[in-house]
Amino acid sequence: MSAGDQDVEGVPQSGKAVAPGGPERSERWRRRREEIVDTSAKVFAVHGFHGTSTTELCEANGLGKGALYYYIGSKEELLAAIHDRVMDEVMVGAARVVEADATPPEQLAALGRELLDVIARYPDHVWVFLHEFPALTGQNAVQFRARRHEYEHVVESVIAAGVRSGHFRDVDPRLTSRAWLGMHNYTYLWLKPGGALSAEQVAERFADLFIEGVSR
Amino acid sequence: MSAGDQDVEGVPQSGKAVAPGGPERSERWRRRREEIVDTSAKVFAVHGFHGTSTTELCEANGLGKGALYYYIGSKEELLAAIHDRVMDEVMVGAARVVEADATPPEQLAALGRELLDVIARYPDHVWVFLHEFPALTGQNAVQFRARRHEYEHVVESVIAAGVRSGHFRDVDPRLTSRAWLGMHNYTYLWLKPGGALSAEQVAERFADLFIEGVSR
Repeated sequence: MSAGDQDVEGVPQSGKAVAPGGPERSERWRRRREEIVDTSAKVFAVHGFHGTSTTELCEANGLGKGALYYYIGSKEELLAAIHDRVMDEVMVGAARVVEADATPPEQLAALGRELLDVIARYPDHVWVFLHEFPALTGQNAVQFRARRHEYEHVVESVIAAGVRSGHFRDVDPRLTSRAWLGMHNYTYLWLKPGGALSAEQVAERFADLFIEGVSR
Repeated sequence: MSAGDQDVEGVPQSGKAVAPGGPERSERWRRRREEIVDTSAKVFAVHGFHGTSTTELCEANGLGKGALYYYIGSKEELLAAIHDRVMDEVMVGAARVVEADATPPEQLAALGRELLDVIARYPDHVWVFLHEFPALTGQNAVQFRARRHEYEHVVESVIAAGVRSGHFRDVDPRLTSRAWLGMHNYTYLWLKPGGALSAEQVAERFADLFIEGVSR
Protein backbone atom coordinates (compact mmCIF):
# COMPACT_ATOMS: atom_id res chain seq x y z
CA MET A 1 0.00 0.00 0.00
CA SER A 2 1.38 3.38 -0.93
CA ALA A 3 1.51 6.30 1.48
CA GLY A 4 -1.21 7.92 -0.57
CA ASP A 5 -3.59 5.04 -0.12
CA GLN A 6 -3.37 5.33 3.65
CA ASP A 7 -5.04 8.70 3.49
CA VAL A 8 -8.23 7.52 1.90
CA GLU A 9 -9.84 5.67 4.78
CA GLY A 10 -13.38 6.86 4.94
CA VAL A 11 -13.78 7.44 1.22
CA PRO A 12 -17.23 6.16 0.28
CA GLN A 13 -16.60 2.97 -1.64
CA SER A 14 -19.91 3.07 -3.45
CA GLY A 15 -22.72 5.47 -4.14
CA LYS A 16 -22.15 9.15 -4.70
CA ALA A 17 -18.71 10.36 -3.67
CA VAL A 18 -18.42 13.39 -1.45
CA ALA A 19 -17.63 16.50 -3.49
CA PRO A 20 -14.00 17.49 -2.81
CA GLY A 21 -12.94 20.70 -1.18
CA GLY A 22 -15.79 21.25 1.25
CA PRO A 23 -15.12 23.22 4.44
CA GLU A 24 -15.14 20.01 6.48
CA ARG A 25 -11.81 18.83 5.02
CA SER A 26 -8.93 18.37 7.41
CA GLU A 27 -5.55 20.02 7.29
CA ARG A 28 -4.10 16.62 6.45
CA TRP A 29 -6.46 16.36 3.45
CA ARG A 30 -5.37 19.81 2.27
CA ARG A 31 -1.67 19.00 2.57
CA ARG A 32 -2.09 15.73 0.66
CA ARG A 33 -4.14 17.53 -1.98
CA GLU A 34 -1.37 20.08 -2.43
CA GLU A 35 1.18 17.28 -2.91
CA ILE A 36 -1.06 15.75 -5.58
CA VAL A 37 -1.40 19.12 -7.33
CA ASP A 38 2.39 19.54 -7.39
CA THR A 39 3.11 16.00 -8.60
CA SER A 40 0.43 16.23 -11.27
CA ALA A 41 1.76 19.58 -12.51
CA LYS A 42 5.02 17.79 -13.30
CA VAL A 43 3.17 15.07 -15.24
CA PHE A 44 1.08 17.57 -17.21
CA ALA A 45 4.20 19.65 -17.97
CA VAL A 46 5.80 16.62 -19.65
CA HIS A 47 2.83 14.95 -21.37
CA GLY A 48 0.32 17.80 -21.71
CA PHE A 49 -3.13 17.98 -20.13
CA HIS A 50 -4.94 16.09 -22.90
CA GLY A 51 -2.01 13.70 -23.27
CA THR A 52 -2.23 12.57 -19.63
CA SER A 53 -4.73 9.88 -18.64
CA THR A 54 -6.36 9.57 -15.23
CA THR A 55 -4.53 6.24 -14.90
CA GLU A 56 -1.19 8.01 -15.34
CA LEU A 57 -2.15 10.57 -12.70
CA CYS A 58 -3.09 7.78 -10.31
CA GLU A 59 0.24 6.04 -10.90
CA ALA A 60 2.28 9.22 -10.46
CA ASN A 61 0.50 9.95 -7.19
CA GLY A 62 0.32 6.38 -5.92
CA LEU A 63 -3.44 6.58 -5.67
CA GLY A 64 -6.44 4.67 -6.94
CA LYS A 65 -9.10 6.45 -8.99
CA GLY A 66 -11.48 6.75 -6.04
CA ALA A 67 -8.74 8.31 -3.92
CA LEU A 68 -7.76 10.73 -6.69
CA TYR A 69 -11.38 11.81 -6.92
CA TYR A 70 -11.53 12.22 -3.13
CA TYR A 71 -8.73 14.76 -3.27
CA ILE A 72 -9.24 16.41 -6.63
CA GLY A 73 -12.59 15.65 -8.24
CA SER A 74 -11.71 15.62 -11.92
CA LYS A 75 -8.77 16.19 -14.25
CA GLU A 76 -10.11 19.66 -14.97
CA GLU A 77 -10.39 20.44 -11.24
CA LEU A 78 -6.74 19.46 -11.00
CA LEU A 79 -5.83 21.90 -13.76
CA ALA A 80 -7.80 24.62 -11.96
CA ALA A 81 -5.97 23.75 -8.72
CA ILE A 82 -2.58 24.03 -10.47
CA HIS A 83 -3.59 27.43 -11.73
CA ASP A 84 -4.82 28.51 -8.28
CA ARG A 85 -1.57 27.39 -6.66
CA VAL A 86 0.39 29.78 -8.92
CA MET A 87 -2.13 32.61 -8.76
CA ASP A 88 -2.35 32.43 -4.95
CA GLU A 89 1.40 33.06 -4.77
CA VAL A 90 1.31 35.74 -7.47
CA MET A 91 -1.50 37.61 -5.71
CA VAL A 92 0.18 37.41 -2.29
CA GLY A 93 3.29 38.98 -3.87
CA ALA A 94 1.23 41.67 -5.60
CA ALA A 95 -0.53 42.51 -2.31
CA ARG A 96 2.83 42.91 -0.57
CA VAL A 97 3.90 45.37 -3.28
CA VAL A 98 0.67 47.36 -3.27
CA GLU A 99 0.68 47.68 0.52
CA ALA A 100 4.32 48.83 0.67
CA ASP A 101 5.04 52.54 0.81
CA ALA A 102 6.99 52.98 -2.41
CA THR A 103 7.09 55.05 -5.61
CA PRO A 104 5.54 53.62 -8.81
CA PRO A 105 8.98 52.76 -10.30
CA GLU A 106 9.89 50.96 -7.06
CA GLN A 107 6.55 49.15 -7.06
CA LEU A 108 6.96 48.07 -10.68
CA ALA A 109 10.43 46.71 -9.93
CA ALA A 110 9.08 44.87 -6.87
CA LEU A 111 6.22 43.36 -8.91
CA GLY A 112 8.80 41.98 -11.33
CA ARG A 113 10.85 40.47 -8.50
CA GLU A 114 7.76 38.83 -7.00
CA LEU A 115 6.53 37.47 -10.33
CA LEU A 116 9.86 36.01 -11.47
CA ASP A 117 10.30 34.47 -8.03
CA VAL A 118 7.03 32.53 -8.49
CA ILE A 119 7.89 31.55 -12.09
CA ALA A 120 11.28 30.23 -10.95
CA ARG A 121 9.80 28.33 -7.96
CA TYR A 122 6.88 26.77 -9.87
CA PRO A 123 8.22 26.05 -13.38
CA ASP A 124 5.93 23.06 -13.98
CA HIS A 125 2.79 24.78 -12.68
CA VAL A 126 3.46 27.91 -14.73
CA TRP A 127 4.21 25.88 -17.84
CA VAL A 128 0.95 23.96 -17.42
CA PHE A 129 -1.22 26.94 -16.77
CA LEU A 130 0.21 29.06 -19.59
CA HIS A 131 -0.16 26.19 -22.07
CA GLU A 132 -3.31 24.47 -20.93
CA PHE A 133 -5.65 27.16 -19.66
CA PRO A 134 -7.90 26.73 -22.74
CA ALA A 135 -8.90 23.33 -21.31
CA LEU A 136 -10.69 25.06 -18.42
CA THR A 137 -14.44 25.29 -18.93
CA GLY A 138 -17.45 26.91 -17.27
CA GLN A 139 -16.87 28.33 -13.80
CA ASN A 140 -13.21 27.28 -13.85
CA ALA A 141 -12.62 29.35 -16.99
CA VAL A 142 -14.51 32.32 -15.55
CA GLN A 143 -12.48 32.24 -12.35
CA PHE A 144 -9.20 31.82 -14.26
CA ARG A 145 -9.92 34.92 -16.35
CA ALA A 146 -11.05 36.92 -13.31
CA ARG A 147 -7.86 36.19 -11.35
CA ARG A 148 -5.64 36.84 -14.34
CA HIS A 149 -7.40 40.17 -14.95
CA GLU A 150 -7.09 41.05 -11.27
CA TYR A 151 -3.33 40.68 -11.47
CA GLU A 152 -3.06 42.50 -14.78
CA HIS A 153 -5.06 45.33 -13.24
CA VAL A 154 -2.48 45.69 -10.44
CA VAL A 155 0.32 46.10 -13.00
CA GLU A 156 -1.74 48.54 -15.04
CA SER A 157 -2.63 50.59 -11.94
CA VAL A 158 1.01 50.94 -10.91
CA ILE A 159 1.90 52.18 -14.40
CA ALA A 160 -1.06 54.59 -14.39
CA ALA A 161 0.04 55.87 -10.97
CA GLY A 162 3.53 56.45 -12.38
CA VAL A 163 2.12 58.49 -15.24
CA ARG A 164 0.04 60.56 -12.79
CA SER A 165 2.96 61.09 -10.42
CA GLY A 166 5.19 62.21 -13.30
CA HIS A 167 7.69 59.39 -12.79
CA PHE A 168 6.64 57.90 -16.14
CA ARG A 169 6.04 59.45 -19.53
CA ASP A 170 2.48 59.71 -20.84
CA VAL A 171 2.33 56.05 -21.92
CA ASP A 172 -0.86 54.01 -22.38
CA PRO A 173 -1.08 52.04 -19.09
CA ARG A 174 -2.95 49.11 -20.65
CA LEU A 175 -0.61 48.57 -23.59
CA THR A 176 2.43 49.20 -21.41
CA SER A 177 1.25 46.67 -18.81
CA ARG A 178 0.88 44.12 -21.61
CA ALA A 179 4.46 44.76 -22.72
CA TRP A 180 5.60 44.31 -19.12
CA LEU A 181 3.58 41.13 -18.63
CA GLY A 182 4.90 39.59 -21.86
CA MET A 183 8.49 40.39 -20.95
CA HIS A 184 8.11 38.80 -17.50
CA ASN A 185 5.70 35.90 -18.15
CA TYR A 186 7.71 34.67 -21.12
CA THR A 187 10.67 33.90 -18.86
CA TYR A 188 8.88 30.60 -18.06
CA LEU A 189 10.53 29.25 -21.24
CA TRP A 190 14.10 29.70 -20.03
CA LEU A 191 14.29 30.84 -16.39
CA LYS A 192 15.57 27.76 -14.56
CA PRO A 193 17.01 27.22 -11.10
CA GLY A 194 20.78 27.06 -11.48
CA GLY A 195 20.77 29.15 -14.68
CA ALA A 196 23.39 31.80 -15.40
CA LEU A 197 21.26 34.47 -13.70
CA SER A 198 18.98 34.08 -10.69
CA ALA A 199 15.34 35.16 -10.88
CA GLU A 200 16.25 38.17 -8.78
CA GLN A 201 19.08 39.19 -11.12
CA VAL A 202 16.86 38.85 -14.17
CA ALA A 203 14.14 40.88 -12.45
CA GLU A 204 16.62 43.62 -11.59
CA ARG A 205 17.86 43.91 -15.18
CA PHE A 206 14.36 43.80 -16.60
CA ALA A 207 13.30 46.54 -14.19
CA ASP A 208 16.24 48.69 -15.25
CA LEU A 209 15.35 48.18 -18.93
CA PHE A 210 11.63 48.71 -18.54
CA ILE A 211 11.67 51.61 -16.11
CA GLU A 212 14.26 53.40 -18.24
CA GLY A 213 11.90 52.83 -21.18
CA VAL A 214 8.86 54.39 -19.53
CA SER A 215 10.57 57.12 -17.53
CA ARG A 216 10.62 60.77 -18.55
CA MET B 1 -17.36 14.25 -53.24
CA SER B 2 -15.66 17.20 -51.69
CA ALA B 3 -13.30 19.48 -53.57
CA GLY B 4 -10.49 17.95 -51.56
CA ASP B 5 -11.23 14.43 -52.69
CA GLN B 6 -10.87 15.44 -56.31
CA ASP B 7 -7.21 16.14 -55.73
CA VAL B 8 -6.26 12.68 -54.65
CA GLU B 9 -6.48 10.77 -57.90
CA GLY B 10 -3.36 8.74 -58.14
CA VAL B 11 -2.99 8.18 -54.38
CA PRO B 12 -1.87 4.58 -53.98
CA GLN B 13 -4.89 2.74 -52.62
CA SER B 14 -2.87 -0.08 -51.15
CA GLY B 15 0.72 -0.90 -50.31
CA LYS B 16 3.10 1.73 -49.00
CA ALA B 17 1.91 5.26 -49.56
CA VAL B 18 4.28 7.74 -51.14
CA ALA B 19 5.97 9.86 -48.49
CA PRO B 20 4.53 13.37 -48.68
CA GLY B 21 6.55 16.41 -49.65
CA GLY B 22 8.94 14.89 -52.15
CA PRO B 23 10.34 17.11 -54.90
CA GLU B 24 8.00 15.53 -57.44
CA ARG B 25 4.91 17.20 -55.94
CA SER B 26 2.99 19.61 -58.15
CA GLU B 27 2.22 23.22 -57.44
CA ARG B 28 -1.42 22.19 -57.07
CA TRP B 29 -0.45 19.66 -54.40
CA ARG B 30 1.49 22.36 -52.53
CA ARG B 31 -1.38 24.85 -52.64
CA ARG B 32 -3.85 22.25 -51.38
CA ARG B 33 -1.43 21.21 -48.66
CA GLU B 34 -1.15 24.84 -47.53
CA GLU B 35 -4.95 25.09 -47.32
CA ILE B 36 -4.99 21.96 -45.16
CA VAL B 37 -2.30 23.38 -42.89
CA ASP B 38 -4.29 26.60 -42.44
CA THR B 39 -7.61 24.85 -41.81
CA SER B 40 -6.01 22.42 -39.36
CA ALA B 41 -4.31 25.24 -37.46
CA LYS B 42 -7.78 26.60 -36.71
CA VAL B 43 -8.96 23.20 -35.44
CA PHE B 44 -5.88 22.70 -33.24
CA ALA B 45 -6.22 26.26 -31.88
CA VAL B 46 -9.73 25.43 -30.61
CA HIS B 47 -9.38 21.82 -29.46
CA GLY B 48 -5.63 21.47 -28.86
CA PHE B 49 -3.25 19.14 -30.67
CA HIS B 50 -3.84 16.12 -28.44
CA GLY B 51 -7.56 16.94 -28.22
CA THR B 52 -8.01 16.72 -32.02
CA SER B 53 -8.50 13.32 -33.68
CA THR B 54 -7.45 12.45 -37.22
CA THR B 55 -11.15 11.98 -37.97
CA GLU B 56 -11.85 15.58 -36.94
CA LEU B 57 -9.02 16.80 -39.16
CA CYS B 58 -10.43 14.82 -42.07
CA GLU B 59 -13.90 16.29 -41.52
CA ALA B 60 -12.61 19.86 -41.22
CA ASN B 61 -10.64 19.47 -44.46
CA GLY B 62 -13.24 17.44 -46.38
CA LEU B 63 -10.74 14.62 -46.90
CA GLY B 64 -10.52 10.91 -46.25
CA LYS B 65 -7.68 9.50 -44.15
CA GLY B 66 -5.71 8.35 -47.19
CA ALA B 67 -5.97 11.79 -48.76
CA LEU B 68 -4.94 13.51 -45.54
CA TYR B 69 -1.88 11.27 -45.42
CA TYR B 70 -1.14 12.06 -49.07
CA TYR B 71 -0.88 15.75 -48.25
CA ILE B 72 0.43 15.73 -44.72
CA GLY B 73 1.75 12.38 -43.55
CA SER B 74 0.87 12.41 -39.86
CA LYS B 75 -0.68 14.65 -37.24
CA GLU B 76 2.81 15.53 -36.04
CA GLU B 77 3.92 16.43 -39.58
CA LEU B 78 0.92 18.74 -39.68
CA LEU B 79 2.06 20.42 -36.47
CA ALA B 80 5.56 20.81 -37.94
CA ALA B 81 4.03 22.30 -41.12
CA ILE B 82 2.01 24.81 -39.06
CA HIS B 83 5.20 25.82 -37.32
CA ASP B 84 7.08 26.09 -40.63
CA ARG B 85 4.36 28.25 -42.13
CA VAL B 86 4.85 30.82 -39.35
CA MET B 87 8.63 30.54 -39.23
CA ASP B 88 8.93 30.93 -43.03
CA GLU B 89 7.16 34.28 -42.76
CA VAL B 90 9.10 35.34 -39.67
CA MET B 91 12.44 34.53 -41.32
CA VAL B 92 11.52 36.33 -44.56
CA GLY B 93 10.73 39.43 -42.50
CA ALA B 94 13.96 39.10 -40.53
CA ALA B 95 15.98 38.78 -43.75
CA ARG B 96 14.37 41.96 -45.09
CA VAL B 97 15.43 43.79 -41.94
CA VAL B 98 18.98 42.43 -41.88
CA GLU B 99 19.54 43.29 -45.54
CA ALA B 100 18.23 46.84 -45.19
CA ASP B 101 20.72 49.63 -44.65
CA ALA B 102 19.60 50.87 -41.24
CA THR B 103 20.89 51.64 -37.74
CA PRO B 104 20.44 49.03 -34.98
CA PRO B 105 17.54 50.97 -33.38
CA GLU B 106 15.83 51.18 -36.78
CA GLN B 107 16.47 47.47 -37.35
CA LEU B 108 15.05 46.54 -33.95
CA ALA B 109 11.93 48.60 -34.64
CA ALA B 110 11.57 46.96 -38.06
CA LEU B 111 11.96 43.47 -36.55
CA GLY B 112 9.08 44.28 -34.19
CA ARG B 113 6.87 45.48 -37.06
CA GLU B 114 7.61 42.32 -39.07
CA LEU B 115 7.01 39.98 -36.12
CA LEU B 116 3.73 41.53 -34.97
CA ASP B 117 2.54 41.56 -38.58
CA VAL B 118 2.99 37.75 -38.72
CA ILE B 119 1.39 37.24 -35.29
CA ALA B 120 -1.63 39.31 -36.36
CA ARG B 121 -1.97 37.53 -39.72
CA TYR B 122 -1.57 33.98 -38.37
CA PRO B 123 -3.25 34.00 -34.95
CA ASP B 124 -4.27 30.33 -35.07
CA HIS B 125 -0.87 29.12 -36.29
CA VAL B 126 1.01 31.15 -33.69
CA TRP B 127 -1.33 29.97 -30.94
CA VAL B 128 -0.80 26.36 -31.96
CA PHE B 129 2.94 26.54 -32.25
CA LEU B 130 3.49 28.43 -29.00
CA HIS B 131 1.23 26.01 -27.10
CA GLU B 132 1.89 22.70 -28.79
CA PHE B 133 5.57 22.67 -29.75
CA PRO B 134 6.34 20.13 -26.98
CA ALA B 135 4.40 17.57 -29.07
CA LEU B 136 7.10 17.69 -31.75
CA THR B 137 9.56 14.79 -31.54
CA GLY B 138 12.81 13.65 -33.17
CA GLN B 139 13.84 15.56 -36.28
CA ASN B 140 10.78 17.81 -36.10
CA ALA B 141 11.78 18.95 -32.61
CA VAL B 142 15.40 19.48 -33.67
CA GLN B 143 14.37 21.59 -36.65
CA PHE B 144 11.87 23.56 -34.59
CA ARG B 145 14.56 24.49 -32.06
CA ALA B 146 17.09 25.32 -34.79
CA ARG B 147 14.74 27.71 -36.58
CA ARG B 148 13.64 29.32 -33.34
CA HIS B 149 17.28 29.83 -32.31
CA GLU B 150 18.10 31.22 -35.75
CA TYR B 151 15.48 33.93 -35.31
CA GLU B 152 16.48 34.65 -31.72
CA HIS B 153 20.04 35.02 -32.91
CA VAL B 154 18.99 37.75 -35.37
CA VAL B 155 17.38 39.75 -32.56
CA GLU B 156 20.38 39.24 -30.31
CA SER B 157 22.79 40.29 -33.09
CA VAL B 158 20.93 43.53 -33.74
CA ILE B 159 21.07 44.37 -30.03
CA ALA B 160 24.78 43.48 -29.88
CA ALA B 161 25.40 45.68 -32.95
CA GLY B 162 23.60 48.52 -31.18
CA VAL B 163 25.83 48.14 -28.13
CA ARG B 164 28.96 48.14 -30.36
CA SER B 165 27.78 51.17 -32.35
CA GLY B 166 27.04 53.09 -29.18
CA HIS B 167 23.33 53.47 -29.93
CA PHE B 168 22.52 51.21 -26.97
CA ARG B 169 23.84 51.07 -23.42
CA ASP B 170 26.09 48.23 -22.40
CA VAL B 171 23.21 45.74 -21.96
CA ASP B 172 23.51 41.93 -22.11
CA PRO B 173 22.40 41.14 -25.70
CA ARG B 174 21.10 37.68 -24.81
CA LEU B 175 18.99 38.69 -21.83
CA THR B 176 17.81 41.82 -23.61
CA SER B 177 16.77 39.84 -26.69
CA ARG B 178 14.75 37.56 -24.40
CA ALA B 179 13.00 40.57 -22.90
CA TRP B 180 12.23 41.82 -26.42
CA LEU B 181 11.01 38.42 -27.60
CA GLY B 182 8.73 38.00 -24.58
CA MET B 183 7.22 41.44 -25.04
CA HIS B 184 6.52 40.79 -28.73
CA ASN B 185 5.64 37.08 -28.78
CA TYR B 186 3.21 37.42 -25.91
CA THR B 187 0.97 39.67 -28.02
CA TYR B 188 -0.48 36.45 -29.50
CA LEU B 189 -2.80 36.39 -26.48
CA TRP B 190 -4.53 39.67 -27.27
CA LEU B 191 -3.45 41.14 -30.65
CA LYS B 192 -6.51 40.62 -32.84
CA PRO B 193 -7.53 41.99 -36.22
CA GLY B 194 -10.00 44.81 -35.57
CA GLY B 195 -8.61 45.50 -32.08
CA ALA B 196 -8.17 49.02 -30.70
CA LEU B 197 -4.62 49.21 -32.11
CA SER B 198 -3.28 47.68 -35.31
CA ALA B 199 -0.23 45.42 -35.24
CA GLU B 200 1.76 48.30 -36.71
CA GLN B 201 0.62 50.74 -34.01
CA VAL B 202 1.46 48.27 -31.25
CA ALA B 203 4.88 47.62 -32.83
CA GLU B 204 5.57 51.35 -33.00
CA ARG B 205 4.74 51.89 -29.32
CA PHE B 206 6.68 48.82 -28.24
CA ALA B 207 9.69 50.03 -30.24
CA ASP B 208 9.47 53.43 -28.59
CA LEU B 209 9.33 51.82 -25.15
CA PHE B 210 12.04 49.26 -25.74
CA ILE B 211 14.50 51.42 -27.63
CA GLU B 212 14.16 54.16 -25.04
CA GLY B 213 14.91 51.50 -22.43
CA VAL B 214 18.12 50.29 -24.04
CA SER B 215 19.40 53.60 -25.40
CA ARG B 216 22.10 55.65 -23.75
